[in-house]
Amino acid sequence: MEEEKKILCVGLVCLDIINVVDKYPEEDTDSRCLSQRWQRGGNASNSCTVLSLLGAPCAFMGSLSVGPVADFIMADFSQRSIEVTVLWQVKGQTPCACCVVCPSSGSRTVVLSDMNLPDVTAQDFSKVDLRQFKWIHLEGRNAEEQVKMIQQVVMYNSTLPQHQKITVSVEIEKTREPLYQLFPHGDVVFVSKDVARHFGFLTAEAALKGLYSRVKQGAVLVCAWAEKGADALGPDGLIIHSDAFPPKNLVDTLGAGDTFNAAVIYTLSSGGSLQDALTFGCRVAGRKCGFHGYDKIGETFADD
Amino acid sequence: MEEEKKILCVGLVCLDIINVVDKYPEEDTDSRCLSQRWQRGGNASNSCTVLSLLGAPCAFMGSLSVGPVADFIMADFSQRSIEVTVLWQVKGQTPCACCVVCPSSGSRTVVLSDMNLPDVTAQDFSKVDLRQFKWIHLEGRNAEEQVKMIQQVVMYNSTLPQHQKITVSVEIEKTREPLYQLFPHGDVVFVSKDVARHFGFLTAEAALKGLYSRVKQGAVLVCAWAEKGADALGPDGLIIHSDAFPPKNLVDTLGAGDTFNAAVIYTLSSGGSLQDALTFGCRVAGRKCGFHGYDKIGETFADD
Repeated sequence: MEEEKKILCVGLVCLDIINVVDKYPEEDTDSRCLSQRWQRGGNASNSCTVLSLLGAPCAFMGSLSVGPVADFIMADFSQRSIEVTVLWQVKGQTPCACCVVCPSSGSRTVVLSDMNLPDVTAQDFSKVDLRQFKWIHLEGRNAEEQVKMIQQVVMYNSTLPQHQKITVSVEIEKTREPLYQLFPHGDVVFVSKDVARHFGFLTAEAALKGLYSRVKQGAVLVCAWAEKGADALGPDGLIIHSDAFPPKNLVDTLGAGDTFNAAVIYTLSSGGSLQDALTFGCRVAGRKCGFHGYDKIGETFADD
Repeated sequence: MEEEKKILCVGLVCLDIINVVDKYPEEDTDSRCLSQRWQRGGNASNSCTVLSLLGAPCAFMGSLSVGPVADFIMADFSQRSIEVTVLWQVKGQTPCACCVVCPSSGSRTVVLSDMNLPDVTAQDFSKVDLRQFKWIHLEGRNAEEQVKMIQQVVMYNSTLPQHQKITVSVEIEKTREPLYQLFPHGDVVFVSKDVARHFGFLTAEAALKGLYSRVKQGAVLVCAWAEKGADALGPDGLIIHSDAFPPKNLVDTLGAGDTFNAAVIYTLSSGGSLQDALTFGCRVAGRKCGFHGYDKIGETFADD
């Protein structure tokens, strides 16, 4: 029997230190937070967490630098049974974000360190044994290198029958010009509300219609729009929509987008329809906003 | 030949994550810091760092909880040759402070997590071999237990000739009523500007005169007042003063108070006068504010 093929997510992993406070601290004061938790963060890394909680075999690929932050991250990956291909960088340090979450005002303030940790290169990626994977998701970062990685997957796919080809998805979240070269390289392209608005679009539907010309033939473009739910557009030209599923009480929106992406990939990679994927994405992401972290996703949605 | 006796500091150790920013972050924004560093923190723990850099054999006693924060802290103690007696607690977690240091405004903002880690108890302390120490410094925390610890030292001292007795210092930094019971239990009592102001005093001199009745006979009361320098009052009734020694450029005031305490203890424990101790305290603390962290204290002041 063949081993089940996995989903690979390539991107950033960092440490999020999340301080929950009753009031945002004034400058030059000492205060205590109500609670503090450490959480493995980063978009691709968070999506792995959700995939794993949903019961999908998955793997992460990204850079780390030896030290206590990397120790924490590696232990968390291992605890969640996420396979990891780490590029151990000698330059730079693993990034760490200090987050101040204030539920009474609804604010989340983030101070991220950029520690000059090099990203995964196309050369690093060329050492990956692609035969293990059915889906590869790239969080848009060093786009030029990432285009080369995708070309490697396309080459690999060209030798295979249709049902064995690897599907490639990309996430274009940040409003940075170089990332937009990724549009024509994904079978599934996630574009953020931020990027959509940066292009002047005021709704997900408008963004999909306006940006679809940028994706390759046959690709699916997906755009989530917070409390408005999410829309998707495929080669048949039909806009598909799902409403949001807001939780009773909004508790923690950190990582909601990564949760949505994971749930969409989960559904599509197991043969679900685009409508199913979109609805499941909104359901899981909405539910996630009702509790801290990700663990309860497993209790609610995992199929086994 | 007898081994040189050490200085023991009892109190908090935590992890300080220090984000250096060009501007204090506004609520609900995302920003990047100029740099980030991890540093072992906590008053007693910082004072050990400075004592060790000044060349004094010293030891730390405090609580930790197993995990990556404790790993980082233990490695740092070891690297600095500070002996450690750790109470490994099964309840609670090692605290971690997210600090935002802004050199342009001179501010340091601290958000500390209180992770319900139990403090060192008098029973824990009773297992310490007091013969190793010439000085024991307690950072005021669980004052009721700390009074019992000091009573153990007093009992031990009562069996010894004067020159072999252990000197006890206490730090009363926080404006918490229960801490004030420590006033009559130190041979040297450090009272903070914060506490002095809480009692209604507007200068160090006024605070010393007003609070001296609370300390035991023969004790020395010390009060540092930031850029105004520091004052001290002993049994002879004379107020001693040292001006501050501000650095050319204010870079990092985090731990300046702990540095002052360590330099005063260092001088007094090696037989220096109260005036010498106060002046050295102000010099080392002032110099420390001119660079990040503590390392350069060693280059500038260590006598060997």
